[in-house]
Amino acid sequence: MPTVEIVATGSELLTGRYVNTNAVELSRKLSAHGFSVVRHQTLGDNLRRLAEAVRQALAGADIVITTGGLGPTLDDVTRSALSEATGIPLRLDDEAAAQLHERFRSLGRQMAANNLVQAEVPERGGWFPNPHGTAPGLYFDLGKQLVFALPGPPRELHPMFQEYALPLLLERFPPEGKQLSRVLRLVGLGESDIDAICRPILQPAPELTYSILARPGLVDVTLSRWVALEAQCDSRLDEIFQCLQDKLRALFYAMDDRPLEAVVGELLRSQGKTLATAESCTGGLLSQSITSIPGSSDYFLGGFITYSNLLKEKLLGVAPELLERHGAVSPQVARAMADGARKRAEADYALAITGIAGPGGGTPEKPVGLVYVALADSEGAQAEEWHFFGAREAIRERSRVAALNQLRLRLVKQN
Amino acid sequence: MPTVEIVATGSELLTGRYVNTNAVELSRKLSAHGFSVVRHQTLGDNLRRLAEAVRQALAGADIVITTGGLGPTLDDVTRSALSEATGIPLRLDDEAAAQLHERFRSLGRQMAANNLVQAEVPERGGWFPNPHGTAPGLYFDLGKQLVFALPGPPRELHPMFQEYALPLLLERFPPEGKQLSRVLRLVGLGESDIDAICRPILQPAPELTYSILARPGLVDVTLSRWVALEAQCDSRLDEIFQCLQDKLRALFYAMDDRPLEAVVGELLRSQGKTLATAESCTGGLLSQSITSIPGSSDYFLGGFITYSNLLKEKLLGVAPELLERHGAVSPQVARAMADGARKRAEADYALAITGIAGPGGGTPEKPVGLVYVALADSEGAQAEEWHFFGAREAIRERSRVAALNQLRLRLVKQN
Repeated sequence: MPTVEIVATGSELLTGRYVNTNAVELSRKLSAHGFSVVRHQTLGDNLRRLAEAVRQALAGADIVITTGGLGPTLDDVTRSALSEATGIPLRLDDEAAAQLHERFRSLGRQMAANNLVQAEVPERGGWFPNPHGTAPGLYFDLGKQLVFALPGPPRELHPMFQEYALPLLLERFPPEGKQLSRVLRLVGLGESDIDAICRPILQPAPELTYSILARPGLVDVTLSRWVALEAQCDSRLDEIFQCLQDKLRALFYAMDDRPLEAVVGELLRSQGKTLATAESCTGGLLSQSITSIPGSSDYFLGGFITYSNLLKEKLLGVAPELLERHGAVSPQVARAMADGARKRAEADYALAITGIAGPGGGTPEKPVGLVYVALADSEGAQAEEWHFFGAREAIRERSRVAALNQLRLRLVKQN
Repeated sequence: MPTVEIVATGSELLTGRYVNTNAVELSRKLSAHGFSVVRHQTLGDNLRRLAEAVRQALAGADIVITTGGLGPTLDDVTRSALSEATGIPLRLDDEAAAQLHERFRSLGRQMAANNLVQAEVPERGGWFPNPHGTAPGLYFDLGKQLVFALPGPPRELHPMFQEYALPLLLERFPPEGKQLSRVLRLVGLGESDIDAICRPILQPAPELTYSILARPGLVDVTLSRWVALEAQCDSRLDEIFQCLQDKLRALFYAMDDRPLEAVVGELLRSQGKTLATAESCTGGLLSQSITSIPGSSDYFLGGFITYSNLLKEKLLGVAPELLERHGAVSPQVARAMADGARKRAEADYALAITGIAGPGGGTPEKPVGLVYVALADSEGAQAEEWHFFGAREAIRERSRVAALNQLRLRLVKQN
């Protein structure tokens, strides 16, 4: 299987202010096409270090893809570094220069002389046009190895990779196998508990690669195996995966990339049901995730963010006595919020969340992390009590997930 | 300045399914303490490749920090790889073994024999206890260089880094200088326009490091310079930064890490004003960002997610004729939504967003990306029309930013 290293440049990526998402996205595409990504590197805009990193990458990979550092300024060192690392000189390309002039002309801008370096291309290799920016992409051809220089901005990088770099890779390194993966996306139990359930099942199958990964409230279990290119399934992989599925049946919501909010949305759609929300501590986090799914207007009617007690009364009809007697963070108020949202939005279901996300506002009786989630339907409302740990964002996120899962379990039962 | 390489291990990080946030967070802390992070590497769980990567890292950095791969299983290869790369053998440590036994005992779990590898520590160097997990952290001491093996899960990694690794680093590599940075966080103009404004100002100061980075609707401009450890300011840096500030005055909302929603929140708080929201296409994205700020209940009263026309009428009192004549995505309806939200929530200000986030729902007259943002106060409501490009999430995010900025500009005028 051909091996790939991805080398990102950009001093800002080493300061901890920004995340290098390019490598992640490229890796996803490369893995899906049967390439084995063996390393990511991230470097500053330093010619000597970058050239050395590319030399190191060439010692262990068939293909090296760099991103960033193709601009016209002094800190854009990728072109020179790759020329040095590969020993392939650069030459000014007339057609690339003409396209560069044309792009500046169409933007109505004067092209400064230093921009012309962007028309320098490898003597052995080639270049790709960049419809979304000025810098063309380059590849340096070492015969058995290829080194790519692609632009850093994602809106320039990804179309160029898809349209030019990937087809060239597939032509030059026809894949011989691929990684077959099966994912179980789980909700409702912690990482270590799920791991303890999986391990005995996996023990007799050391030939499978197992990984477990947790995000707040959610856990992904992945099983994979290298198979022939034409294989659509693998009996051993499928057998063990089926065992996991059987054991974790109550917990899994998807076996693909769909987020929990999409799964819940599809259940609502298929059952012809509508949903409304009422949120206090999550402040819209639940509704924004539901509406992040295209077409969610088919089942999502709307929501109420009732941060103040006054709005809980006024918008949702929560009785003032209830708020006074039990407090805003109580199962009684959660149920009344869900009931009120359902009735006022004329929805089939409503989810309500009220809790203490912190860092302030906690008391010994009602500590930070105490959250009530209620689900209302035509027969009334039921509330669940949660005690979440972590910072404000983690508590809000876990509340959101708990609410979606409470509705999911209800909808699955109706199926 | 001491140089650091961060090496993350974990095969799942190379598949494109997960982002390596550990390196980002460690880089932020290291940079703030005067260390220069020169490279990030991410590798799979492969002993030979990891050992080679650490050897390469030691050729260019004073300090190497690895994260992950310290568990008890076969794919946890970090201990062996570092021993091989540094030439420092491992030995079983009695105290580490005792702590490991104690941890399993306290969890009420039987310790399997393979767990004992987690008590193996370098013969030259030391180890750190791990109160949040089983694997102790390790450091291999090469005299002039240090190699750390820290756990992968963030909740184990960051406390251990803060409590043990960082103090050791500061003792062994007392910092001689630090990077002084100034950031301008800008909203209201695109990256290339802002870049064009900055470049002439920066031209006479090549000794300063300049970087510009865009997120949807927002642009950060950073200027930095290496200075003596005790320096709190640098006259050249401050002079040029002041020029940028003067030139970009209308655009900048912060010079620190505060997000736009925190800046708007502080303006509301300081003026004793309250806010409500009404969202259609953003579905709660605006309100959830406002309420992500601790203490936002001081100024945020609540919000309405009115996805359906019926709820726009019922909850916000938008006149049906208005919806019929102009459509839900119109300046008239945006203004009516803002007015309605303000009155029903009894707030000083209200922001409303209505638009077409796509991918469906666009028409030639009202294409995907058309968004109206309205701001209401006691004197009425004003709407702004926006044409955003990109995918659903980008359009929603830009709408959110535009709404916050519309309110920010109003509040700044009141100051």
